[in-house]
Amino acid sequence: MAGLDPENWSALRALGHQMLDDMFTQIEHRHQQPVWTPMPHKAREELRQSLPHDGCSLPEIYECFQELIVPYDNGNRHPRFMGWVHGAGTPIGMLAEMLAGGLNANCGGRDHAAIEVEREVLRWAREMVGLPVETGSGCLVTGSSMANFIAVITASRTYQPALRQQGVRHHALVGYAPESAHGCLPRAFDIAGLGSDALRKIPTDGAHRVNVAALREQIKRDRAAGLEPFMIAGTAGTVDCGAVDPLDHLADVAQEEQLWFHVDGAFGALACLSPHYAPLLKGIERADSVAFDFHKWAQVPYDAGCVLVRDGKRHAAAFAQSLDYLVREDRGLAGNAPWFCDFGPDLSRGFRALKVWMTLSHYGADRMGQVVDKSCAVARHLAQQIDRTDGVTLLAPVTLNIVCFTVDALSDDALSELVKDLHETGIAAPSTTRINGQLAIRAAIVNHRTETQDVDQMLDAVIALATKRLNAGVHEHKS
Amino acid sequence: MAGLDPENWSALRALGHQMLDDMFTQIEHRHQQPVWTPMPHKAREELRQSLPHDGCSLPEIYECFQELIVPYDNGNRHPRFMGWVHGAGTPIGMLAEMLAGGLNANCGGRDHAAIEVEREVLRWAREMVGLPVETGSGCLVTGSSMANFIAVITASRTYQPALRQQGVRHHALVGYAPESAHGCLPRAFDIAGLGSDALRKIPTDGAHRVNVAALREQIKRDRAAGLEPFMIAGTAGTVDCGAVDPLDHLADVAQEEQLWFHVDGAFGALACLSPHYAPLLKGIERADSVAFDFHKWAQVPYDAGCVLVRDGKRHAAAFAQSLDYLVREDRGLAGNAPWFCDFGPDLSRGFRALKVWMTLSHYGADRMGQVVDKSCAVARHLAQQIDRTDGVTLLAPVTLNIVCFTVDALSDDALSELVKDLHETGIAAPSTTRINGQLAIRAAIVNHRTETQDVDQMLDAVIALATKRLNAGVHEHKS
Ligand SMILES: Cc1ncc(COP(=O)(O)O)c(C=O)c1O
Ligand SMILES: Cc1ncc(COP(=O)(O)O)c(C=O)c1O
Repeated sequence: MAGLDPENWSALRALGHQMLDDMFTQIEHRHQQPVWTPMPHKAREELRQSLPHDGCSLPEIYECFQELIVPYDNGNRHPRFMGWVHGAGTPIGMLAEMLAGGLNANCGGRDHAAIEVEREVLRWAREMVGLPVETGSGCLVTGSSMANFIAVITASRTYQPALRQQGVRHHALVGYAPESAHGCLPRAFDIAGLGSDALRKIPTDGAHRVNVAALREQIKRDRAAGLEPFMIAGTAGTVDCGAVDPLDHLADVAQEEQLWFHVDGAFGALACLSPHYAPLLKGIERADSVAFDFHKWAQVPYDAGCVLVRDGKRHAAAFAQSLDYLVREDRGLAGNAPWFCDFGPDLSRGFRALKVWMTLSHYGADRMGQVVDKSCAVARHLAQQIDRTDGVTLLAPVTLNIVCFTVDALSDDALSELVKDLHETGIAAPSTTRINGQLAIRAAIVNHRTETQDVDQMLDAVIALATKRLNAGVHEHKS
Repeated sequence: MAGLDPENWSALRALGHQMLDDMFTQIEHRHQQPVWTPMPHKAREELRQSLPHDGCSLPEIYECFQELIVPYDNGNRHPRFMGWVHGAGTPIGMLAEMLAGGLNANCGGRDHAAIEVEREVLRWAREMVGLPVETGSGCLVTGSSMANFIAVITASRTYQPALRQQGVRHHALVGYAPESAHGCLPRAFDIAGLGSDALRKIPTDGAHRVNVAALREQIKRDRAAGLEPFMIAGTAGTVDCGAVDPLDHLADVAQEEQLWFHVDGAFGALACLSPHYAPLLKGIERADSVAFDFHKWAQVPYDAGCVLVRDGKRHAAAFAQSLDYLVREDRGLAGNAPWFCDFGPDLSRGFRALKVWMTLSHYGADRMGQVVDKSCAVARHLAQQIDRTDGVTLLAPVTLNIVCFTVDALSDDALSELVKDLHETGIAAPSTTRINGQLAIRAAIVNHRTETQDVDQMLDAVIALATKRLNAGVHEHKS
């Protein structure tokens, strides 16, 4: 049998060019279509086939792609997607993915250029947040969920290296995070075997920032109870409302208590590139580890998370392994230690670094800072519009790019139905969350394409749907 | 500020077409170049720049890509790369990555077509290994390392759901794997907080298959000592020499002892698609979970791992979380539960499924089975050549696609130097491993492009280098 390469490269080339053209056209005009179109039942059913025994021609597959997949996309490339903290992607990122797909490098280790590109991107990331460029470490991962998990593992193995062999059984480890921390932190404690209860949730203040005094007290109580505190995590940009914890104060507590200081900056860390917002994140440069994503505010295509560690030796001590068939040599293809599989759970790893490298090289850090500024300006504009409009109320201060508000006259249930209605109109896609227990419409402005008129349109649509709903309600009462 | 879209789409289009053409040409002619070219120090240095503040034009970046990255690739697309279990990729996979990069879907959840594609691919995967197509579950992950970890978490949470909140402290959990198991299994026990010592290594027989009687005894001893066995892992295709554990017997033990039965089929699971080799894997269809990769024998570009679970409810019970801002709705963009973030640690997730879907749709399962057959035939050919050649000796039986051998006259050190020399010639890239403590040259035939003449060339080069080395040694002695 011949390999899987085409018999006819030129036919494949032609189809490839067509795909590139179609996708560029699609991206360029995406904003003219609905943000979201529910996938019809029929299209879902057409995707259900049993495992194909015989192959199918690529033109047929591409037709299926265009009919069944493209029209029912995620919506996050559209300027009025503001539901969750999703990056929008760029055509540069798309080309980078094509090149990486063609190269097909395995970035788990060994001596090849893709490894150098990842090292470079990680030096840039450390420079961005202020961690030691040369002696620090890191790796690209799927997302901040994995990055936070790697930080938890590194922190705990730094506390007690023997955990690697002996497990966590002989210790009563506890960590600390504000109650506003992302759900991936308790999850990291869960899958690390510590249990989600071992992440102590510290209360926050009216601005949703962690209460540092309460943290100190909790640590004291836990030590008195014989527990073993090992890490503190703060958030730079909380998922619900974009608050930033007082990182400098958290760093002080961590230093006094000799605890690992981690910062989850999933989207917020990118604010380090904005001279205007960077001061808010003061203290992040004192972190022992930082988690963040390039697929969020940096607009790199999914997935592209990143974990950074101040002390590369500690990071490697938590993950490096020696296996017979993976000996690191002084020369040859098996050279170039340390390998990236020494810095996280993955052995085989794709060439995520290329899309990050091309994106940052092309736009430059300053332009990325301007993307942050623009999103925050659009969010502030929305907050002002809400303040000026009767019947809608902000539910949390707007620190960065997330705006939470409610329609005064609607119950939580009605508000939730309204947001689903809004999705179905295709006009805009905010999400919901709870702020102090109350349901909120949440608009997260992350997309580089989102302008003030987009949030205006969203707000108008919310008000129109609310009015309709209230009128219908009155109507119902009357009938 | 405008968004990050280009001012001039047509210039970007033109460059994109150029990139596609160049990369296709590069793939088509890759075999004419050395398998591996070490990256010169100067090229590495050129990649070291501080974080770029200003952007750089895409043509300049692309020039840099072509000069600094392309010539120093990983080598795994070349037919004489046989060092590690790496897939070679296909141009179809490259185009799929371009399309996925353009769509930029986040497959953590919500209601869009990319999710349906991933569900489809996972149904195919369950059909392939014989797990329940409808009631089973799974998700695409980076690689088998992560897939095995997810299996360990699911198995332990099935044993005791409260571990999620309480951690593993109150239990003395132990699992079982053959000593030939991949290093990612003890690593999974490490990062799950159980400790790598809690994975009991069971001895193997002369064919490197697990000794089932020894397993039974170990379980008995552990229960008597008050430990809590929860899982057994077998391997379909060991990394060192491609052995397949007696999966059916392991399934029997797991059933009798009421333990979770997991199969690591990182590359070997693909042998289910070969009518010739599938019988070797009998018992895999009884597994509670299976880990394997599409980026290995299925030639999908990196990364594309997969975990499958027999009982979708147990899988979700191990990972599902409820967060205020991620409520699953009955309609709207936030519909379509369960979400993929309910089946693994990742929240944001790329659209890995597209490249798998396009690859399997295009080639079909039967052709993939032929790729398996071909690799195994090439490996058997190499084994025969070794048997027929004086001075070289096979060190392990060839079950599937991995051949381990030695040059009789060389010490372990000399053999290791020889392999590095071979890499530096650019002729072929095998790796080394240890078989019963002895250093071996290890040729893993995974690449769909590798033919019998490629392994012949590798063997010739090994013999030539060995002769040179032995002559030089004699010479040294004489002088
Ligand atoms: C503050 C915060 N942390 C962690 C995460 C999880 O990141 P990911 O989705 O990349 O895993 C998010 C996601 O939005 C987040 O906002
Ligand atoms: C048997 C086995 N299990 C697990 C792995 C790890 O897979 P991955 O590199 O995709 O993480 C490998 C890698 O070669 C393997 O051969």
